[in-house]
Amino acid sequence: MPKKPEWIPENSGDEFSSSTIEGVLNKNITSSKKIKSKSLTIDDYYSGIIDGNRAIIAQAISIIESNSDKHYLLAQSLLQKLIPSTGKSIRIGITGAPGAGKSTFIDTFGSFLIKNGHKVAVLAIDPSSSLSKGSILGDKTRMEVLSRENGAFIRPSPSGSTLGGVARKTRETILILEASGFDTIIIETIGVGQSEITVRSMVDFFVLILLPGEGDELQGIKKGTVELADVLIINKDDGDNLNNAKFTKSQYELAIHYIQQATEGWNSKVITTSAIENKGISEVYDLMNQFIEHTKSSNIFDKRRNSQLLNWLYSNIEDRIKSHFYNDSEVQNKLSKFESEIIQGQISVMAAVDELLNTYFTNK
Amino acid sequence: MPKKPEWIPENSGDEFSSSTIEGVLNKNITSSKKIKSKSLTIDDYYSGIIDGNRAIIAQAISIIESNSDKHYLLAQSLLQKLIPSTGKSIRIGITGAPGAGKSTFIDTFGSFLIKNGHKVAVLAIDPSSSLSKGSILGDKTRMEVLSRENGAFIRPSPSGSTLGGVARKTRETILILEASGFDTIIIETIGVGQSEITVRSMVDFFVLILLPGEGDELQGIKKGTVELADVLIINKDDGDNLNNAKFTKSQYELAIHYIQQATEGWNSKVITTSAIENKGISEVYDLMNQFIEHTKSSNIFDKRRNSQLLNWLYSNIEDRIKSHFYNDSEVQNKLSKFESEIIQGQISVMAAVDELLNTYFTNK
Repeated sequence: MPKKPEWIPENSGDEFSSSTIEGVLNKNITSSKKIKSKSLTIDDYYSGIIDGNRAIIAQAISIIESNSDKHYLLAQSLLQKLIPSTGKSIRIGITGAPGAGKSTFIDTFGSFLIKNGHKVAVLAIDPSSSLSKGSILGDKTRMEVLSRENGAFIRPSPSGSTLGGVARKTRETILILEASGFDTIIIETIGVGQSEITVRSMVDFFVLILLPGEGDELQGIKKGTVELADVLIINKDDGDNLNNAKFTKSQYELAIHYIQQATEGWNSKVITTSAIENKGISEVYDLMNQFIEHTKSSNIFDKRRNSQLLNWLYSNIEDRIKSHFYNDSEVQNKLSKFESEIIQGQISVMAAVDELLNTYFTNK
Repeated sequence: MPKKPEWIPENSGDEFSSSTIEGVLNKNITSSKKIKSKSLTIDDYYSGIIDGNRAIIAQAISIIESNSDKHYLLAQSLLQKLIPSTGKSIRIGITGAPGAGKSTFIDTFGSFLIKNGHKVAVLAIDPSSSLSKGSILGDKTRMEVLSRENGAFIRPSPSGSTLGGVARKTRETILILEASGFDTIIIETIGVGQSEITVRSMVDFFVLILLPGEGDELQGIKKGTVELADVLIINKDDGDNLNNAKFTKSQYELAIHYIQQATEGWNSKVITTSAIENKGISEVYDLMNQFIEHTKSSNIFDKRRNSQLLNWLYSNIEDRIKSHFYNDSEVQNKLSKFESEIIQGQISVMAAVDELLNTYFTNK
């Protein structure tokens, strides 16, 4: 049974309604908890989003983030209507260990993008945010300059019990923002568990932010992350770090020679920046534009977009059929028995599989 | 409808029978196509395998490799009976690009193992073997010394239309061989598609054989393969290659510093060998023993074995429920329609998912 989202008052009845839209206009940092809304129809949402009305955008995202069945259906109808207006942004993923300076980088880079005429939205995927709670104020402080820009929109991680749930909400939020005219969407992740792979699967361009220092172990990043990145940024190339940054750059340049390309036909690059001193930021922008031009002209860009869509389709289908199977109570009973029997060498794997499948399909 | 395996004569009736057991005793290279068998009961198979009767072992493997339903059931009952006698070998995976000298290495290393009192079986996973056909003679020539050893057993790749099918047959063949007393099982793969990952998922110790030279591109190995290996062997450290081998060794030693450990708590090693000159072979043996001792004492060995078993269980379950879903004809029709609608931006992914799942579960 899906839980009611916290922001709907107890006994709010069947209507998706409460008092007034207020206090969200001109606020770039928007939390679902702060939203009050009057009854809006799908058409109201649709035109509000297309017009770029921030209050309505924020509310639509809250509906996407809601765990109630009713909001799920509302969100899906809305998205279905918006689909033709989506897909036109550049989607950027940014990861890096805590302390590498992701927020400062996004603050500086995002502001640079705005000065260059872009409309920028920042989303976060943080599978641990349900533990830390209320990262909203955190985000405000973290991206001081960007959060004051009118062209910017910053949204903290949706809460969710699974990364899959958070991923769905983020993907659908991207669609809302694209339909609203944001042309650059930055998705930040702190890289817990599989979150980097999840973010990679929804972006065009993936950035790994590293500290001057030696090797991944010291960086606190998971091995394998480097292979996801189209550009490695050695940040904090300032103060006492200058030599260290240069050295780290050369080490990673060597390392990427041995690992898999993140994007077909694109050799990943290493760049040094100082987000605090505004150093290397325009180089990152140039590199990103090169990347986009290159991948668009080779058709890799569209190929990846299409395969991301189909992967998303298939992974959703498969998550659902698996969860239907594993939620079957007879399957559950047998499965836990078989697991220990398999490990103790009492039953063969295929015998267990055969019996489990029989159980499941005769139940259906 | 599963096809009858080629080695069963047309109109062979319902009995699993033909003329006599012949021509397989004392032959280490055994092909299912050459086998003639009289009717054997499960008990005959069981005791023959436990006694190490090579003719019966070869026949049992042929039953596992058969694609008929009847043989599937026979094989599964037999395996269920054998399970308590399995699991006691060391399972070694060996990969490398064509030309790196895998066969020569296995020939030399396998013979070394036999001289040190081991009983060695060599299996191959070659997803492309159904194309090249008849690799049996090939294997015989490829491993000249080993194929003459009484303690050795060499079996070419089972044929199969999917890597999953080949993987099941190989896993089950490992069980038969373990029950027969082989204490070292070597699984060779040429590394087409996902086959290296598949082999990694069924072995304790994984070896990548490389040529003296520079970088993975020149080696013709897929990037990412290095991360699977517990030991990298720079083979052909002989003749004009001596300096080159040393250089390649140092390059890979640097590279593995940046990539994921294949085995928790074990830093992958790089060794130079010359299989032709019998150089470095005992070092590989020592290293393997170190690895086994280390992983057994830290319990990583058993942990991996158990998780391999459970992964095998879950991946089989999921393959089957997915194939049940994707074989549904209504699902198939809608899916191909939705795929193009999604790419053309006419339907949202979640709307497609919802409708497909509805279709499927109301059919059940």
